[in-house]
Amino acid sequence: MEDNKIKIGITQGDVNGVGYEVILKTFADPAMLELCTPVIYGSPKVAAYHRKSLDLQASFSIINSASEAADNRLSVVNCTDDEVKVEFAKPDPEAGKAALKALERAVEEYKEGLVDVIVTAPINKHTIQSEEFAFPGHTEYIEERLGEGSKSLMILMKGDFRMALATTHIPVRDIASSITKELIEEKLAIFHTCLKQDFGITAPRIAVLSLNPHAGDGGLLGTEEQEVIIPAMKQMEAKGILCYGPYAADGFMGSGNYTHFDGILAMYHDQGLAPFKTLAMEDGVNYTAGLPVVRTSPAHGTAYDIAGKGVASEDSFRQAVYVAIDVFRNRQRDKEARVNPLRKQYYEKRDDSDKLKLDTVDDEG
Amino acid sequence: MEDNKIKIGITQGDVNGVGYEVILKTFADPAMLELCTPVIYGSPKVAAYHRKSLDLQASFSIINSASEAADNRLSVVNCTDDEVKVEFAKPDPEAGKAALKALERAVEEYKEGLVDVIVTAPINKHTIQSEEFAFPGHTEYIEERLGEGSKSLMILMKGDFRMALATTHIPVRDIASSITKELIEEKLAIFHTCLKQDFGITAPRIAVLSLNPHAGDGGLLGTEEQEVIIPAMKQMEAKGILCYGPYAADGFMGSGNYTHFDGILAMYHDQGLAPFKTLAMEDGVNYTAGLPVVRTSPAHGTAYDIAGKGVASEDSFRQAVYVAIDVFRNRQRDKEARVNPLRKQYYEKRDDSDKLKLDTVDDEG
Repeated sequence: MEDNKIKIGITQGDVNGVGYEVILKTFADPAMLELCTPVIYGSPKVAAYHRKSLDLQASFSIINSASEAADNRLSVVNCTDDEVKVEFAKPDPEAGKAALKALERAVEEYKEGLVDVIVTAPINKHTIQSEEFAFPGHTEYIEERLGEGSKSLMILMKGDFRMALATTHIPVRDIASSITKELIEEKLAIFHTCLKQDFGITAPRIAVLSLNPHAGDGGLLGTEEQEVIIPAMKQMEAKGILCYGPYAADGFMGSGNYTHFDGILAMYHDQGLAPFKTLAMEDGVNYTAGLPVVRTSPAHGTAYDIAGKGVASEDSFRQAVYVAIDVFRNRQRDKEARVNPLRKQYYEKRDDSDKLKLDTVDDEG
Repeated sequence: MEDNKIKIGITQGDVNGVGYEVILKTFADPAMLELCTPVIYGSPKVAAYHRKSLDLQASFSIINSASEAADNRLSVVNCTDDEVKVEFAKPDPEAGKAALKALERAVEEYKEGLVDVIVTAPINKHTIQSEEFAFPGHTEYIEERLGEGSKSLMILMKGDFRMALATTHIPVRDIASSITKELIEEKLAIFHTCLKQDFGITAPRIAVLSLNPHAGDGGLLGTEEQEVIIPAMKQMEAKGILCYGPYAADGFMGSGNYTHFDGILAMYHDQGLAPFKTLAMEDGVNYTAGLPVVRTSPAHGTAYDIAGKGVASEDSFRQAVYVAIDVFRNRQRDKEARVNPLRKQYYEKRDDSDKLKLDTVDDEG
């Protein structure tokens, strides 16, 4: 990127949900265009349909690729030759196909370096399923396509409140057996790196929630805390990762205890997300940590119940854009800071002066 | 009871926790003594120790049994011959023994009809374990001792927000296999009756949370919704119970959807309690529904972290007293309303007048 503005690749998601509504509402604000250059992967016709039927103010240019994206404009890359019919709130395989095409194109152009980060609008996880897309959701798809072998960590966040999930989209029946020492160690390591590198926290403090109620109550209510979670935490502590707990999940948010930590690692989906959304339904952001690519999305779904009514709040989507920008910038800073590390410098011990003896520096450089 | 005031049997709980503090703070308010006659089962010496060390204002009389409890007084029944030493925040088997003795005495006097309802202060679940007490908590103990064969339902509530648990103190590993059609039907039936009889709601609406994330996502994330929960709900709907869902648990509270229901049935402990406590940590009440006895408790535990500091809030305990009184009164009203049911009355179908034809009533009454 030659200019300083970050190019945001935005996938349209499910055209029958609130995706276009929250995208167009977000970029109707000129201030957003001063912050970044947004490129929607989707369909100009569908975007125009949403704009008209919801009476939105955003204008956009039609382009063939993010390489053509103009400054201070919202642009749309057409990703489909077919006509896509919009029927609000309808689960439609055609819409699923269109969502996938947009996603594939965004991934492609990201690989070519044409966009810096990816922000995804919500998909319908059923209609998008196909030979090309056999994943529980975006997170797993992005990990597969752009992970370069790295493992992802799903984080729901609002400001400093960051809730990561050790397991995500699995049945409750499979949770306990999925919680292994290796998994907890892996997730703690990713979380730690993410908090440092993506959010600029020098010595991040991570709270770990217990798997079982009342943190297993000393073994009365389950043994995974003693046998799996605590040993994994000890292992990571020995590596310098500050992790605390495991804490009983039920009172952890209500007591306000969570505010003392930079991140919380929940053991499974509803344990983390039910209290998270209770506190941050309106403007939560889903961030896929651990991967080379920066990908965020709003915390909400297609919201069929309010699709086409013009009442969807764009707060969550706007926050997703902000987080993507922040993380991208923090990573750049982190990288720059490490390019030319200062050489080790020593003071001469027997010298009372405060002068640095650069001549005694050893030359590992 | 000859007078109209309800006698509240209160167990002291763990003497090293915040139990006495919240009890004494609650009844330091003279208005509370106009509402009910409180009888603490515990130790006058320990009560006096707490009162002095925390500089609380409540005064009390020492009695031998609830039968001696005076009007407009807080009374304490001594339940132990031993000296009980208070060491704030210390898990102590002696304190556990004292907690159990108080509980046993309360149960005994309840059976003799000397108190109307039971409100329990928090116990330490470890130190109370013994041959006489091998239960995960109060709920199971009370069910066993005073249930008369009825099954209990644990409800956490604050005002109209009532969260019931299909399963309670079990490891996460055992949740899925514990969710059976019979269990869901049983819990829905108890919940329905409770909402009608205990809270006076004529046609209660119950929301059911799904076991798996995203309500199982149509089978992608678990099959219990289709195979167990929905069939159980249909069965109960056919019996006239209004139940809705199953709803994905993560967004149910955050969206405010929960406010449309009289009760919510969560599938397991943390699923229900993590969002419940996020919303109602300070003054939640734990109500053991489904039993002949009315038993409530504050939603918090022994709170060792603040025990002896004088900063514990009595809100939750006071609410527990209120709920116990309300439920007892509602049940009385419900019972009275059914003692002499009105005989069935028919309008003559072919008669245009609105006059009731009492002469055509059949005489089943």
